Amino acid sequence: MAKATRSPKGPPEFRGNISFNAQHSPLGAFFSFTCGQFGSRSGLGLQIGKPADQDLFIGVKEGDRFAESPLKCLPFFQGANADEAARYDVEGQSAGAVKQPGLVAYAREEIKRFFGYATDRWTTRELEFSIYTQPLESVEQSTAPVPVVYAELKIDNRKAKKVRTGVFAIRTNAPGTRLLRTPRFDLPGFAVGRSIGAAAWVQGEGPDEEPGVIFRWDADVALRDVNPTHLLGSTPGFYFEVQPGEVKTLRIVLGCHVAGSATTGIEAGYRYARQLGSLEDVLDAGRQFDDDNAKARLADDELSTSGLNADQQFLVAHATRSYLGSTQLLDVGGDPYWIVNEGEYCMINTLDLSVDHVFWELKQNPWVVKNLLDNFVRHYSYVDQVKVPKKKRGEAKAKFAASDDSMNAPRVLGETRPMSEFELRPGGISFCHDQGVNNQFSPRGDSSYELPNLVGCFSYMTAEQLCNWSLMAACYVARTDDTIWLMQNLPTIDACLRSMINRGGDAGFCQYDSSRCQTGSEITTYDSLDHSLAQTRNNVYMATKSWATYLGLKLMLEKAGRADRAKVAGDMAMTVEATVLKHVQPDGTLPAVFEKDNPGYHSKILPACEGLIYPWFWKDPILKRSRLVKVLRKHTQVLLESGTNVFEDGGIKLSSTSNNSWMSKIAIFMHVCRRVLDLGNSGKVRELFKRADAAHVRWQTEGESAYWACSDQMVSGVAKGSKYYPRIITSALWLD
Amino acid sequence: MAKATRSPKGPPEFRGNISFNAQHSPLGAFFSFTCGQFGSRSGLGLQIGKPADQDLFIGVKEGDRFAESPLKCLPFFQGANADEAARYDVEGQSAGAVKQPGLVAYAREEIKRFFGYATDRWTTRELEFSIYTQPLESVEQSTAPVPVVYAELKIDNRKAKKVRTGVFAIRTNAPGTRLLRTPRFDLPGFAVGRSIGAAAWVQGEGPDEEPGVIFRWDADVALRDVNPTHLLGSTPGFYFEVQPGEVKTLRIVLGCHVAGSATTGIEAGYRYARQLGSLEDVLDAGRQFDDDNAKARLADDELSTSGLNADQQFLVAHATRSYLGSTQLLDVGGDPYWIVNEGEYCMINTLDLSVDHVFWELKQNPWVVKNLLDNFVRHYSYVDQVKVPKKKRGEAKAKFAASDDSMNAPRVLGETRPMSEFELRPGGISFCHDQGVNNQFSPRGDSSYELPNLVGCFSYMTAEQLCNWSLMAACYVARTDDTIWLMQNLPTIDACLRSMINRGGDAGFCQYDSSRCQTGSEITTYDSLDHSLAQTRNNVYMATKSWATYLGLKLMLEKAGRADRAKVAGDMAMTVEATVLKHVQPDGTLPAVFEKDNPGYHSKILPACEGLIYPWFWKDPILKRSRLVKVLRKHTQVLLESGTNVFEDGGIKLSSTSNNSWMSKIAIFMHVCRRVLDLGNSGKVRELFKRADAAHVRWQTEGESAYWACSDQMVSGVAKGSKYYPRIITSALWLD
Repeated sequence: MAKATRSPKGPPEFRGNISFNAQHSPLGAFFSFTCGQFGSRSGLGLQIGKPADQDLFIGVKEGDRFAESPLKCLPFFQGANADEAARYDVEGQSAGAVKQPGLVAYAREEIKRFFGYATDRWTTRELEFSIYTQPLESVEQSTAPVPVVYAELKIDNRKAKKVRTGVFAIRTNAPGTRLLRTPRFDLPGFAVGRSIGAAAWVQGEGPDEEPGVIFRWDADVALRDVNPTHLLGSTPGFYFEVQPGEVKTLRIVLGCHVAGSATTGIEAGYRYARQLGSLEDVLDAGRQFDDDNAKARLADDELSTSGLNADQQFLVAHATRSYLGSTQLLDVGGDPYWIVNEGEYCMINTLDLSVDHVFWELKQNPWVVKNLLDNFVRHYSYVDQVKVPKKKRGEAKAKFAASDDSMNAPRVLGETRPMSEFELRPGGISFCHDQGVNNQFSPRGDSSYELPNLVGCFSYMTAEQLCNWSLMAACYVARTDDTIWLMQNLPTIDACLRSMINRGGDAGFCQYDSSRCQTGSEITTYDSLDHSLAQTRNNVYMATKSWATYLGLKLMLEKAGRADRAKVAGDMAMTVEATVLKHVQPDGTLPAVFEKDNPGYHSKILPACEGLIYPWFWKDPILKRSRLVKVLRKHTQVLLESGTNVFEDGGIKLSSTSNNSWMSKIAIFMHVCRRVLDLGNSGKVRELFKRADAAHVRWQTEGESAYWACSDQMVSGVAKGSKYYPRIITSALWLD
Repeated sequence: MAKATRSPKGPPEFRGNISFNAQHSPLGAFFSFTCGQFGSRSGLGLQIGKPADQDLFIGVKEGDRFAESPLKCLPFFQGANADEAARYDVEGQSAGAVKQPGLVAYAREEIKRFFGYATDRWTTRELEFSIYTQPLESVEQSTAPVPVVYAELKIDNRKAKKVRTGVFAIRTNAPGTRLLRTPRFDLPGFAVGRSIGAAAWVQGEGPDEEPGVIFRWDADVALRDVNPTHLLGSTPGFYFEVQPGEVKTLRIVLGCHVAGSATTGIEAGYRYARQLGSLEDVLDAGRQFDDDNAKARLADDELSTSGLNADQQFLVAHATRSYLGSTQLLDVGGDPYWIVNEGEYCMINTLDLSVDHVFWELKQNPWVVKNLLDNFVRHYSYVDQVKVPKKKRGEAKAKFAASDDSMNAPRVLGETRPMSEFELRPGGISFCHDQGVNNQFSPRGDSSYELPNLVGCFSYMTAEQLCNWSLMAACYVARTDDTIWLMQNLPTIDACLRSMINRGGDAGFCQYDSSRCQTGSEITTYDSLDHSLAQTRNNVYMATKSWATYLGLKLMLEKAGRADRAKVAGDMAMTVEATVLKHVQPDGTLPAVFEKDNPGYHSKILPACEGLIYPWFWKDPILKRSRLVKVLRKHTQVLLESGTNVFEDGGIKLSSTSNNSWMSKIAIFMHVCRRVLDLGNSGKVRELFKRADAAHVRWQTEGESAYWACSDQMVSGVAKGSKYYPRIITSALWLD
């Protein structure tokens, strides 16, 4: 992709494959208006981890609504094969109907797409369709954003000699589709039941006007029919006629509303529902469009003047949208409950995602991080024991077997081993992988994901989640200086230190698996990568993360006046560092797993340096003097420059032995390189990163990936898992 | 189908094609547990007009849960091709999995089905699975039935030498699937979100036991796995092991719950939700299983001793189930609001269905009829004008054109005509076709169905709906003697008489279309039949129905002490009768439409006599002396005995010129024949009806129809419209 071309105002033109879906969402509503991939269904999705199942008809026809000319739409409906500019005749089945196709789609070459931080705009010769993300302002704990997305369809007829009719309609493919009017502004609109819908008005030179309403089975048929609406219809929408010489804009508010309790396990409703009693109220509240639209333009400029290259800008903008679509701000008995759902999987507050979102969330709304930390302590913490092998290490060699976990990388994993081979010793506090799934909170102290007796996917992440909570807490305290929270949580923070130590043995980190695993063993967040990142024990990724965790605990304990315990934490960090340094290879790299008989010993992984992001975030001076940082710099440089950890297309390959790569983790990795390791700012790595940026844009927008908006888990550059995902918001680190 | 074979207790064996879906529903919850068609998905459907999308795994395996033997299930899941007893390996996709298929389906020949009034039972060598409809008791206005269906899976291991494991599980194919425990009886269960779910216990010789719970992606895999449950599962269920010598029964409560407002337009919640706050409460309330089960057996006996033949019994039992599945008892501000949804179309209280349900509803719960009548007056009545042609009749000949309405019978319909050809004169009160669709109430005074400017489907049914409300009112007053309601509604009743007269011209019935039609013309409830029943004007079906309406108005006006107005109504009935008698043909039959230039003039229709059911219901002595009855007897006899109105398979053909036939209307027709016209009780028509009964059972259970449970609109014996329908409850007339 070339450099971004900017129009004086507004978002830059996207020069790659423009046929990809993007989510458009308010904060906290678990709601998206998704569209963009040609010929596929999308639309208004509520509480789902994928695009909805609606056909969108956004277009224009020459003449008034009754004219014989076809309705020409953006190709956002099933059957619109814009590649071939094929004409799609929705009336094909009814004999005797109008011979000329009633509906045609714009061909790809007739369309341009401009994709900015807050604006996603489609232009053709006849129309301009824009979707705006609400301004990314901070949200007070006491309120919630109005759950709406704004769109507008503009028809500039100043040079036209004939009237044109603009149309925005949705074939909902859902029962309960209806028309409505909003109570306050009396806007016409439509909805599916009580939960999702739209309202609109027409802005021209004079006072705002009311658009016409259609509601039949087909938008084009409705336009021509003497009865444009029928309550048994399936395709509601708006139309407006634009005379020659006029410019008119249809402004559309797309909103959602869920009343009452939306969850089980913990009974929670949506925070916005405290102020907004119904979908109609939500749509009325969306009448503030004009203000928000202006702010959206400012947001576009914020990104386009950030100094990032066009590819990086794209990734940040795309990632922000998918993040917003997964967010959910709930209310439990009057208190806010913050959730980010896990993309296509819809797990609630997956903690190994939360720790990646923390940089963004501390910038936007620090209180949501506190909310997360508190809810994990209250509802989703537990205390375990650790499994210490009875025989000395080295004697009881682990066995390894090929794993056939579906959808994962080919890999070799350890085997389950009977509990009789272990002695149980005190472990300590840790935190669940998640808090439930699909709006169903899991039982207190249990995640929906983790199971005992496994060595691969779905095993426990006890050690890593302990790190994650501690790191989030340290980032929160460092960034907010919230000493009240710190002092309240001091017992938990100290318990985390003890728990870290109990798991670390002589090496200082991750020697013993949790008793919760029973016969299995712990895994990492890279649950479907290969053996290089599958097991927690003696993993270099966990080593750096543990080192950072001790530094974070030290930071908090110092701030809390517990110098004694802070020293313990600092000493433990040194122990971990010493362990890592022992494993430096002659070429300067580190093995992924520090066990010579482990297949991961021969893998080289870039996330070895991931943990450096945390001390960087809290500006820990240790980064300047640490030997570990120097070792990791060398390790990283070798992996990048030797090409073992770069895909053919230029994309970053996290493990030398796997084609699985996670975009969210790549974003952190690149940031660590640039800001901590001083790699990527010049020389060979700089060129390599530039090429990687371009590859990563293609990963998100081409082929299968294009349907899934922004995705995380890429197999050789194709979204195969963790699709429609929030976590790539880590790319927003680049804005700092 | 042969005569029913009865076991001493319980439902009769069904000897036809047992692979058909049946609905199982409580009253008033718009909820069905549907199953029965082999190899297709069904299950727990809430507020939808079709089977749900779930795979059911109801079966048994040899050995304990871990045994290597396959789980052998009834073929109620996609891929279970029981015709070929094909083995369905759900693990086929994962390499290296157990070689032996984990799941197999019973072959058709291994299964028997017993289908009674309240029990639908499946038996194989190893198991017995029964589904019970709640006892059809009357429901007080102040309460609502618990929204549950009961099922049980019985394993009789008295002759077995090894343990067997029984399983009931559902692949929900929905996000938000979860496990639960009920608060009061602590039953284990599962649910999809907050709305549908199940709980169960095991009954044996000792105290009740708790079943095991499974919850993975596949039921058979879960059984064998060390972790039988995983909160990310998709297939929750129960299992229980039965030792040799034991008999154990898994008792299952299948329930639903919708909290808060479930509708728009009129804000209404479910009546049951006043007593039951959550799905868990509903499932606890379902613990009364034993009592209800016993009553269900009594209901089976009620039908099997009714004197109806096996085919008739089947049709009544099948129809009752589909009716129940469409019922919805709502609460508006503390008052009940009774709804029957229109099957697959989900229109709310379609009035031309209500009038057919009235016989059943007055037997079961007369107050729901009053509720319907009142809600139509309050919310869905209107006053129109009528369109009187400016030129004299006969001069302004109607034009006719072939119609291409999709999915309807080939037919010739009149054309729209400009309003300038008509003079508007006073019309009067009438009622909307329906009250909305899919839980969305339409605006006051408007249906979701009717549109202006049409001559076919979706035009207005003004005249017929006026008849329908009046007939329902007369049936209600005659059956309940509710004079308070009568006196309160006397102004409306008298307005109905005036409105009838204003539409009838000299002929006394249906001469002028409603002004609501604008350029179009009125249609009848037979909206997709051919020209014989499409238009309201001068239709013999509407003539008899109008005649009955005047008699009903007369009955009410007499009872209300308005002898003067009653006489007017009686005279009008005579006028209609005289009109009809003028049109008797030399062969004794009547034309469907009394307009010689109308293509319907050459059609012969059996519903000519349908209107006689109402005076029969209120025991009007006029039936004994009316010349109209004699004429209709002759008409009917000729049509039946000449074969013009009988399908090749023996089924009844409502119109001589169409292959469209409505089972609900056939049931009324047959009842009128037997009880009013004294046809069908002996001789040729008796044999013909017997053959027809058998054909009608095949219509419901074979081919495409088998998926749709009980359906109404049959094209040459195949369900093509009005599927999953409540209206066939008219067959319950046969029980009188």
